Parts: sequence; structure tokens; C-alpha cells
Amino acid sequence: MAKKRIIVIGGSAAGPKAAAKARRIDNDAEVIILQKEADLSMASCGYPYYVGGFFNDRNQLLCTPAGVVRNPMFYLNAKDIEARVNTEVTNIDTKNHSVSFKNAVSGEIGMLTYDKLIIATGAVPRMPPVPGTDLDGITTLQSMKDADFLRKVRDEGKIKKAVVIGGGLIGIETCEALQLAGIEITVIELLPQLLTFLDWELAKLVENHVRSKGANVITENGIAAFLGEDGKLTAVKLQNGTELPCELAVVAIGVRHNVKLAKDAGVKIGDLGGVEVNEYMQTSDPDIYAVGDCVETLHRITGKKVHAPYGDLANLQGRVAGENAASTNCVTFPGTIQTGICKVFDYGAGSTGLSETAAKRLGYSDIITVMNASPDKPGFMEGKLLVTKLVADKKTGRVLGAQCIGPGNVAKQIAQWAMAIQGKMTVEDLINADLPYAPPFSLAIDHFIATAHIMQNKIKGRMKGISCREVHDKIQVGEKPFLIDTRGPEEFEEMRLGIGETLIPLGALRKRFKELPENKNREIICYCKISLRGYEAALALEGNGWKNVKVMEGGIMAWPYPREK
Amino acid sequence: MAKKRIIVIGGSAAGPKAAAKARRIDNDAEVIILQKEADLSMASCGYPYYVGGFFNDRNQLLCTPAGVVRNPMFYLNAKDIEARVNTEVTNIDTKNHSVSFKNAVSGEIGMLTYDKLIIATGAVPRMPPVPGTDLDGITTLQSMKDADFLRKVRDEGKIKKAVVIGGGLIGIETCEALQLAGIEITVIELLPQLLTFLDWELAKLVENHVRSKGANVITENGIAAFLGEDGKLTAVKLQNGTELPCELAVVAIGVRHNVKLAKDAGVKIGDLGGVEVNEYMQTSDPDIYAVGDCVETLHRITGKKVHAPYGDLANLQGRVAGENAASTNCVTFPGTIQTGICKVFDYGAGSTGLSETAAKRLGYSDIITVMNASPDKPGFMEGKLLVTKLVADKKTGRVLGAQCIGPGNVAKQIAQWAMAIQGKMTVEDLINADLPYAPPFSLAIDHFIATAHIMQNKIKGRMKGISCREVHDKIQVGEKPFLIDTRGPEEFEEMRLGIGETLIPLGALRKRFKELPENKNREIICYCKISLRGYEAALALEGNGWKNVKVMEGGIMAWPYPREK
Repeated sequence: MAKKRIIVIGGSAAGPKAAAKARRIDNDAEVIILQKEADLSMASCGYPYYVGGFFNDRNQLLCTPAGVVRNPMFYLNAKDIEARVNTEVTNIDTKNHSVSFKNAVSGEIGMLTYDKLIIATGAVPRMPPVPGTDLDGITTLQSMKDADFLRKVRDEGKIKKAVVIGGGLIGIETCEALQLAGIEITVIELLPQLLTFLDWELAKLVENHVRSKGANVITENGIAAFLGEDGKLTAVKLQNGTELPCELAVVAIGVRHNVKLAKDAGVKIGDLGGVEVNEYMQTSDPDIYAVGDCVETLHRITGKKVHAPYGDLANLQGRVAGENAASTNCVTFPGTIQTGICKVFDYGAGSTGLSETAAKRLGYSDIITVMNASPDKPGFMEGKLLVTKLVADKKTGRVLGAQCIGPGNVAKQIAQWAMAIQGKMTVEDLINADLPYAPPFSLAIDHFIATAHIMQNKIKGRMKGISCREVHDKIQVGEKPFLIDTRGPEEFEEMRLGIGETLIPLGALRKRFKELPENKNREIICYCKISLRGYEAALALEGNGWKNVKVMEGGIMAWPYPREK
Repeated sequence: MAKKRIIVIGGSAAGPKAAAKARRIDNDAEVIILQKEADLSMASCGYPYYVGGFFNDRNQLLCTPAGVVRNPMFYLNAKDIEARVNTEVTNIDTKNHSVSFKNAVSGEIGMLTYDKLIIATGAVPRMPPVPGTDLDGITTLQSMKDADFLRKVRDEGKIKKAVVIGGGLIGIETCEALQLAGIEITVIELLPQLLTFLDWELAKLVENHVRSKGANVITENGIAAFLGEDGKLTAVKLQNGTELPCELAVVAIGVRHNVKLAKDAGVKIGDLGGVEVNEYMQTSDPDIYAVGDCVETLHRITGKKVHAPYGDLANLQGRVAGENAASTNCVTFPGTIQTGICKVFDYGAGSTGLSETAAKRLGYSDIITVMNASPDKPGFMEGKLLVTKLVADKKTGRVLGAQCIGPGNVAKQIAQWAMAIQGKMTVEDLINADLPYAPPFSLAIDHFIATAHIMQNKIKGRMKGISCREVHDKIQVGEKPFLIDTRGPEEFEEMRLGIGETLIPLGALRKRFKELPENKNREIICYCKISLRGYEAALALEGNGWKNVKVMEGGIMAWPYPREK
């Protein structure tokens, strides 16, 4: 029997993983990677940290943990895989089961037949449709070449001002990298907030943190043109007419599926513009699989297809396609719940499942949300703040999504929520979760569990929550709720909102009821630093006859607006 | 209607939580805490970090996050709870619904009736039944007084040598605290290993780490006597006759349920010696609840009762009992999966669910285990080692337990496994888990997912694993498996086992098949630093006809024995 030949187009993340898995499943198959770029298996998610100087050895982006560069020789010797670099596939002929290719260095062209083909052509960065995109000084951070260019910018130290177009994940990571390189940086985002996987109120807290690090942020304003002299970028012009002088612009407004090859070959493209695949990662052509950033991925909660260009999913999809291509369709990829995280200076910012915005956009009407702010560990262990927003189905209590930001251990929180969602768990299931507790690692009641507790209190009607945004909007339109800050006088002296609140420490509340509105139907809003004391105050007020008492969720720590002090 | 009176006996963790919850549920009830000690709501899990000097302000153990000491005044003002300290309950009269108490300071005695009673009397440290326990210089680390004593030892700097009796969680934490105080320390453990929530091979890696920090560890040896002069401890004598000079001994051989009051009152005591409670945390007397270290807790996997004296469970149980006592039985506590973690110098060591040892002891016969070693993050982000052992049901693939140790983010790993167990998930469910990935937080394929992958490979028969211990034992009895270290020459030069292995780097393997045993049935064992390359080597060998190829799980990183270099 002739050897099976499996060809993989693309050598970044999903492709090499598919090839390696195919090899492990079928020791006899011929496995070939055709890679357009000069490098293989680049740790592309690591580019911002190389640019920012977190490490200096470029090879670390291309190496195995043992320090061996993943070049064609490595693939041949260690994995018995033929990897051809600088080799662009120019055509897929599905009838004849062949691909044509061209070597960009040697100019050589050729053709190879396949038994199974795996398309891993990734994504291409979007560019804004404005004048001047061809000026020198405009780049993306999508390739090793881009990383090399920006690292050189850092090392040379000549560039003083830069803009990042786009406040998404890569935009924010790039902002940090360049800011750490000593460059004056401005992030420009068309939407009203950074990081759209977060709801507005958490994104705003992240934005405040970015600003606190000295980077500028401009939201609700897009780029109108890149301006230049002698072919070099000198400024960007925004849609509102503002001109920002800069010598460097990094465009990070997202990516689109790179599907030209697949489309030309007649492989079915989905509604979102990505390659359509079934649960086996198989395309409309049964001998062709597709993986990674070029495909549309099933959302496990909504059942809809989404674009999920994440490095971890690419690897997992590659593993599935590699096995199916090497044997027969036997393993499946269940889809994504869109778990993501990014580092933002000293903060983590992560999300899993649906945000409130996403849930509402998708038509989930009966949802309930809650905010929780608390340290990740006890104060005596130098606990750091976490702010979480939980989204659940109101009827069933099923967890639909959670977001978390702050200097605390955000990754652990998001991992816990991701597992809860994948285990189809409800808020009730989490109330008494048994998690690893010791003071160096968490609070006795972990932030995650406490968030579930607050949600339970809301679902049971024990706590009437109100968001900082709603409180802010009330005040803006001239409403006069009775606002109680329930902290101590020293805390109040150190930091306070200054929105017309009355300071009544929780411990004094029961003696000072007479200072409260006589009208028991008057709206009262309680809060403290994180609104735990605020909640206790609200219960005491309700227990004493006040009927319209709310707790400002997350307290001062979740307040995204300027404070009096 | 008369106010309901709820009395809580015990003011450490579970008791105050129950009281606070009862107050939140019933604003009108009279809620009284009777606490034997002088302090309330002590963060007892934090004692070792106070003793070790991680922080210096003793009040931090007794404070709210806002810095208010949780004294009777605090409870009265902030929570409308009457907390009486130095007040020991001497008797419970269930017929008359009353408790008798005595104030240890004033000598006052009294009686209070209750509508509902919550017993939170905690646990008492076990003492070894040997001579000399009354000598000065012998202590536990169970109370604020103990913590004060040991902190004074640290601050005075007079004591040079100490022993810790017992290598469990508190023993190890105390060992670290005293070692950081500059005291020469020896941990004495009767069993063959430290930290029995871990299986032997992981415990041994922890022991090696403890030794590497300069602390001595003696296993399989118990204490025979405390020796002293003039009433002061001068040495401990071990069961094998060894005498260890020391001026301080900390006994940490576990705790037993403190149930005297409950037992005397006729409340039913379970087989393990703890108060028996149902899912409502209700005892055999319907008006009495019990919570925390004094109760027996349901194990959610085995369905059996266990002693689970953990601070997090105490709080959760308190919350349940508080609500039920204040209203009616409406919320339940589902039990524990015995999730635990502790800091051991630069390592974390955690476990959730069943260890292999526990599973076998409980009669689970058809289980399968796997070890995985890998960094928690990419090398370029300064990833740190994690070593995990996973235990699953072989037929169903259901996760039964997982343990993880190492300098990496152990807490996140254990939290993920704990959620997987609580979600009743199988290994297959975890293969394509969607977890938060970015280089500052994890590998593209997280250690947790990779562990599931290896388990899947074992379940499917693709990987035949062998533990380091089995390999070691084979060599000890003179067996001669053909051992292949598949790393590079430089790695081999830097660190190697020296157990008769042949160095054949993975990349050279396919060219060096002729150096391998001609007998294709000969046992071959492959490994590398973490046994990923070892696995690929094994597949290549199997693909080329060798029939008895095994992978040493976890590789050199999981080898608990001395190495050649």
C-alpha cells in the first residue's frame, strides 16, 4: 500500500500542530508542511513581549523549550516531517488532489499531490480604508518581520511618538510594549471602549489603568488619514479632525480570515468569511481539513459560528484535524466559549463566555448580572484587587459568562469560570465550590465563590444591585437618591467619590437611622470600598422599614469615573 | 411574636460566619456568639505567615479588610451581633433549650436559652502519647496564643534548633516559618512521606525541595519521648533511638473533632468522632446545627463521611447553617472533594479529589493515572515547573483526582481540576477545554489540558507509561530495561540520571535505530526532561517494530531519587 501523503498549508501554530499529530497517529504517512514565511512555529502571541523587552533573544520565539530552533532540519529529524519554508501555495486543485507552490527565494515552482490536505492559512490584519497607508512607519504586529521591526524601533530609541490604531487585545499589548520602550503612545479606538470582550464598565477601569501608566487613550474616534512627508509618517488625522504628530503607527484593528486559496479551490466559505468546517475540522471537501485563524468556529453557548483567532484554539484544532486526516474522522472539536485574557501593564483582563453586551446582542433577554470587587488574597498576604462581572441566565441560574480585571490573579478566576461554563454549571452549583484555599493563594471564600454568593443574593431578591454607571447617570440627570458611603471616616478622608454622598459608617448606622430619609420609599443607595459593608447596611435599612434600598455593585473599586479624591 | 434567639458556640471561623449569615437572613433575631478565647474571627490559616515574618502586624489576623478589629464592639455595631469572649460554654441542655457558660476572666457564670443553637467548637490538636509533653518549649500552632509564642521565638532569635513533629500541611508551613526565622529545623514524620494528600512520588519531590532549602526531613520515624532538663525541652528522642537536641518542638500531627459539649448533650457523634450532620448542617437534634472542624463532612466523590478541617469549608458550612437556623431548612451543603493547597517555600503543593493511594484504599480498582511535567508559561515568559498527577476512572474517563506541585502556578491548576471534578467531567471533556491563554499566563496548550492529552493517549493505548518509581525499582532488582534519554548532548552534560541510560537525542533517533536492541520484544524506556520528546521517541520506535516501549512519565523533572548530576 502506498504511503498516505498529508500536506499542511501553513506553518505557524495550527499547521505544525496538525502535522505533528498526524505523524504521531500514522508513523508511515508522508507529512509535508508548506510554509510561506521564512520561519516556522513562531510563538506569535509572544511578539509584544519581545518588542517590549521582556526578553531579548529572538530565537526564544522559535525554539522548543529545550532551546532547539524549530527549523526544517528540526522537523525532519525530530518529527520526520518535511517542512518547506518560503514556499507559498499558489493553487489547490481539488479534482486532482494537488497543490501548486512557488518558492519565494529560489523562484522554483512545483506541484505536489495529496491524500489529505490541511489548510492553516491563518488570518491577515485589517487595514483601515484611509489615505496614506503606504507611508513608512506604519506597521502591524502580526508577523516575525513586524516584531523585528518594532523591536528595532525599541532598541534604536529614535522614535518618540507613536499611535496604536485599535484598542483590542493586540493593540493594548502593543501599547504596553511601546510605552515600556519609552515611547509616548496614544491608543485610538473607534468604539466607546477598549477591549470589547469586556463590558463597558470593566473596560473603563482598564482604560483608567492604561492612562495611569502614562499612555493616552482616545475612544469614539477613528483614523481618517495617515499624513506624511517624503514618504514617511509624520502624523495621523482623526475623524474629528484632530492631528496627532507621530513617527510610528501600529495598526491593530483586527484580522480577517485568510481564505483566498480555499475560496479559489471551491471550498465552502461561511457567512463570516471563514472556511466552514464541521466538528471534525473538515471542510466541504472531505479530503480537506482547515484549522486555526482561517476557519469559523462554533460557539459552544450560542451554537453560532464565530471568528475566534486564538493561539490555544489553533493548537487544539490542529490536533483534531491532524488525527482525523491521518486516520479517519474520529475526534471532534467542540468549539469555543471565547475565553481570552491579556496583560495590561500591572492588570490582567480576561473574559469567558458571553459579556452582557454580547448576550443582549444575541437576544438573551432574561439575564442577570452582578459585579464583585475584592482582593484575591488576604490583606496580610498582599492581596491584590479583582473586579468581576458575572452574567447568568436568570431562570436557570446557568453561568453564561464572566469577566475579570485587576492586578490580582485574573487568570485563575477566568479559568474557574471557564470550567464552570464548560461543566454547564449554575450559580447554585458554585455557592459551595471546594477550591484550593490557603492564605498565599486565595481568600477563605474565594473571589469566585463570593461572586456566586452575591449573584445568589440578587437572584433570591435579597440584594437589589445598581451599577456604578446607573448611579452616575441618575446623578447626571439630576435625580437625588440618598447616597450612603458606609466606610470609616479615615477611609473617607483618603478616598471618596464626592457625588453628594453621606458618610455613615456601617458600625454607626443603627444609631443614626434618624438621619435617613423619613420617606421610607425614597431611593437609598449604599456602597463602601467594595460594597460588602454596603450590602450589610442595605439589609439593616430594609430590616428597619426602608423599602427602596440598593447596593452599588463593586463599590468605589468599580467606579470608573473621576473621584473627588 | 418573640424574637428568635440564635446562639453560636465558637467564634473562630465557622461560628462568626454562621452568626453573620443568620443576622442577614433575620434582621430581628437575637444572635449571640459565645467564644471561649479572647479573640474573635482569627485568620488562623495565616498564623504561619505571621510567625515567619511575612507580615508583622498581629492585628492583621483579627481585622476586617478595612482595618477594623473584629472585637465584640465591632460585632455589635456593624452586625448587631452580641459576641461574648472569654466565655466558655460548659453545658448544653437540649431539653430546656439552654446553654450554661462561664467567663474565664470574671468567673461569672450564667445561662441562656436558645431557639436555635449552632455548634462551632472546632478541633483540638492531637498530642503524641509519649513522655515529656509538659516540658517548656513544646507547642502547637493552633491558637493565637501559639502564634504569639512562636512569633516571639522568631523575634528574640535565641532558639537555634527546633523540630516539627508531623509533616502534614501545618507541619510544613511551620517548618518554613521557623526556617525563615533562621532556626535549624528538622521535620519528623512517622509515615514514609510528607503531605499525605499527595501520592508518594509527588510528596518526595516536595521533600527534596524542603531539603534544598536547608531544612532536615526524617520520615518513617516517630517521636518516642520529649527530653528535658529543669522542665525545659532539650531534645526529642525518636522511635529508632536517635536523639535530636532542640530547644523547641512544634507538634503538628493533626487535629481531632472537639465534640465534648455536643457529645455530653446527647447530640449524635459519627463513626469518625465528629458531630454527625445532615445536608442542612443539622445535628440529630433538630434545633442544633454544627459547622466547621467539629463536624464530619460528606465526601462528594465517595459518598463517605470524612474529617475535613479546612477554613474555606468552615466558612461555607457556617453560611449554610446560619441561613437554616435563621429561617427554616432551605439551603444545603453538598460536601467536600478535599481540595487543599499549601505553600512550601518556593513551591505550591495542592490536591483535589482522590489521590491514587486514597482511591485504592477506598476500593477503586479500575483507575488509571498519569504524570505530567511542564512549565506553566512559555520559557520566554519565565515559565516555572509544574508536576501533575491525574487519577481517573479507566472505564468512564471521569476525573477522580489531581495533585500538582512545583514553583509554577499550582493554585490555578488545582482550581481547574477542582472545577472539573465538581462538574463531573471526563478526560474527554477536558481535551479541548477553552482556557484563558496569553503568554504571561499559560502555555498555548495549558499544562492542565496537556495532562488530559497524555491521559487520553494512555487510555487509548497510544502511550505506555511507566512511573519513575517503577523504573527505579526495576533497576534496584537488577532488571536491565534499555533506557533512552532523548535529550540533546548539552542537556545531558548539564543534568542526567546516570541509571545506565543511553543518550540518543530525538532528532538522531531515526538514524540510530541500529544501536537499539535487536530483540524487538526487549523492554525499552524512553524519557527526556519532561518526557514529551520521550513520547515522540516511543512512537517512532513502535512505528519501526519495537513492541515493548514505555515512556517514563514526567521525565527527569519527576524523578524523586538522587541523580548522577
